[in-house]
Amino acid sequence: MPGREFFQTQSVGQALAGFRPRRRTGPETVRREDALGRVPARAVRSGVPLPGFARSTVDGYAVRAADTYGAGDGLPAYLDVVGALRMGTAADVEVRSGGAVQIPTGAAVPGSADAVVMIEHTQVTMPGVIEVTRPVAVGDGVVRPDEDVAVGNELVPAGRPLRAQDLGLLAAAGITRLVVLRRPRVAIISTGDEVVAPDTECVSPGQVRDATASALAALVLQAGGEPASYGIVPDDLELLTKTLTTAVAECDLVVVSAGSSVGARDETTAAVEALGAPGVYCHGLAIKPGKPTLLAECADVPVIGLPGNPLSALVVFRMVGLPVLRLVGGITTVPPEPSTAATMARPVASAAGRLDVVQVSVRDGVATPLFGHSALLSLLTSADGYVVIPEPATGLDAGTSVTVTMYR
Amino acid sequence: MPGREFFQTQSVGQALAGFRPRRRTGPETVRREDALGRVPARAVRSGVPLPGFARSTVDGYAVRAADTYGAGDGLPAYLDVVGALRMGTAADVEVRSGGAVQIPTGAAVPGSADAVVMIEHTQVTMPGVIEVTRPVAVGDGVVRPDEDVAVGNELVPAGRPLRAQDLGLLAAAGITRLVVLRRPRVAIISTGDEVVAPDTECVSPGQVRDATASALAALVLQAGGEPASYGIVPDDLELLTKTLTTAVAECDLVVVSAGSSVGARDETTAAVEALGAPGVYCHGLAIKPGKPTLLAECADVPVIGLPGNPLSALVVFRMVGLPVLRLVGGITTVPPEPSTAATMARPVASAAGRLDVVQVSVRDGVATPLFGHSALLSLLTSADGYVVIPEPATGLDAGTSVTVTMYR
Repeated sequence: MPGREFFQTQSVGQALAGFRPRRRTGPETVRREDALGRVPARAVRSGVPLPGFARSTVDGYAVRAADTYGAGDGLPAYLDVVGALRMGTAADVEVRSGGAVQIPTGAAVPGSADAVVMIEHTQVTMPGVIEVTRPVAVGDGVVRPDEDVAVGNELVPAGRPLRAQDLGLLAAAGITRLVVLRRPRVAIISTGDEVVAPDTECVSPGQVRDATASALAALVLQAGGEPASYGIVPDDLELLTKTLTTAVAECDLVVVSAGSSVGARDETTAAVEALGAPGVYCHGLAIKPGKPTLLAECADVPVIGLPGNPLSALVVFRMVGLPVLRLVGGITTVPPEPSTAATMARPVASAAGRLDVVQVSVRDGVATPLFGHSALLSLLTSADGYVVIPEPATGLDAGTSVTVTMYR
Repeated sequence: MPGREFFQTQSVGQALAGFRPRRRTGPETVRREDALGRVPARAVRSGVPLPGFARSTVDGYAVRAADTYGAGDGLPAYLDVVGALRMGTAADVEVRSGGAVQIPTGAAVPGSADAVVMIEHTQVTMPGVIEVTRPVAVGDGVVRPDEDVAVGNELVPAGRPLRAQDLGLLAAAGITRLVVLRRPRVAIISTGDEVVAPDTECVSPGQVRDATASALAALVLQAGGEPASYGIVPDDLELLTKTLTTAVAECDLVVVSAGSSVGARDETTAAVEALGAPGVYCHGLAIKPGKPTLLAECADVPVIGLPGNPLSALVVFRMVGLPVLRLVGGITTVPPEPSTAATMARPVASAAGRLDVVQVSVRDGVATPLFGHSALLSLLTSADGYVVIPEPATGLDAGTSVTVTMYR
């Protein structure tokens, strides 16, 4: 059986470092308006300087700085007002020595002026003449034509999802389209004879509605992927292999939430092996909840087999699936996640050598662990976030300072 | 001039507490699949118990616990295997005293059994008989029919944007549609004779492409609103009043990014006043950058006049606009924002009585303040996040521990 020698429980750190499927999404061109959260395929550089002209940062008078040297309340500099500039037009007035031109904030400063004196530091003593009561240095009150961005400067880097201000700077530089990496298409396959569609009105005893697929789709969306539902497959090797084959052909990442029985888990493994090399990377992660996790690569497409419990499946997908999703989608700068500092209200036990993910509610800086069987999904909806107990630790004492990753 | 007595600079805290426009979005029904991030108008309660049947949490044998009391390796309990249960079907086998039925994880436990013994604690010694080598208590290995959710339990609360796991629990309970609050429609109006559309290929000296509108639209989207562009209005009171009138009639929140000149700012105020009561709430916030901010209410619609600099406008919109957006959209539990603890690399001065928002880059737990004129938008794209210096402080010393709110 190919890959059988790799069937072993790995630590989450080992798995994330070692499981590097080759699949990457390709480039596509999108409009800037649609680019929030998208990942630039390469750095976007500016073809223009910004603001593009010497720009006044104050309301006042454009002057030659030398004319104001030594000016003060006792000995103001007197300058002739030779005109007034308007917003949005070229500064086509010449400021000669001894002259000044009225200018609003944001307007273009004439090339013949080299500073703008604030209106607060001037007085109009007679029509057409101002007193300047404070000296200005060259460049005061002015932003240089390429002070914000010079030609060739990087506007946005490759690999970091675009943020609001990035779109603003792209707009300022006149970028209307850009090349981003395609959103990874993520196949979501649910399996299990007991699993029925969420819109099933009446379920029989023994049946459960599929909770995992809906939640996984949401996580994929939040992480910048495109979820694709492949429905619910009963515990039947042939059917699962068929669905998996289609999903691998059509998607960039495949997620199978296994039925909860041992038999169902074995079927996922068998189906993955039926698809061929490179096959199973690891079978079992040293994580609680979530041990029965399968990582595999079919052709170049990563396949993640999740545990049957919705809670376990969602924990593992956050910890292992999202990093793989980002790898495939070319996200090299991971967006920051909400977190908060807290102290543990109660002790939590853990086994050394295993990563424990503890659901907590947080109030006034105190994190209270939520205990309960991992078959209970309500544990996850009651939680505000989770605390990770690293592999070497054997637990957390009450009062320990922890970082809680918060759900949003 | 109505409201003139309120023309005063307020602290950000005062403004957020005092500026409470009456506008609220109404309810609408959406499909669960489309509900990520949407805000439930009221708590959604379960009409069914979950999992809905006594459910095995292990692979093993459903038994009567009393039959296993005292069992151990030396003195196992012998039980007759009377059948095997399958996933997804009713548990229609009777377990009498002395009997056991094989059961996979997740299957329905027969009503006549009261515990499931793990397969690891059993041995098949002869066909049809198992040895149980560890006792189980009543309820061991079983989730009760309403242990996850009881009928009438809250599945999701009102006012908190729906998270991935919330959608999972709604799916489990068979909720296919739910009543959420309509996304606030946010009008974005840019003003200024110098401002041209971002897709303007060649700009003349003195003109700048509109950066603010694109970035604001992205912030609105991220916060759960629906941006609506009202284009660029020149510095003309009549035109601005007309655009504002339309926007107030069509939207739930109106944002005007002012031209940067004093005249342009006065025009926004005049246009708001032309629209009538209750009118201007405050004109000027004790915040840097962002002082020339206008808060007003036209009919019941909040109108926010932002400073002309894109950087200042975006800072103010984050600090003041997003809370107003959430108020209008019924978000009472604010989703957590990414943040990180850091120490300041350099001192930053601030004036007492003013909220300072300092852009920083963060590396290895050290926050380096980015200095530069607020006319430079690239300051904001270079930043990883920001640090808030509260009103009473006169600055931050180098080495001060701070919380950096991170951009995403």
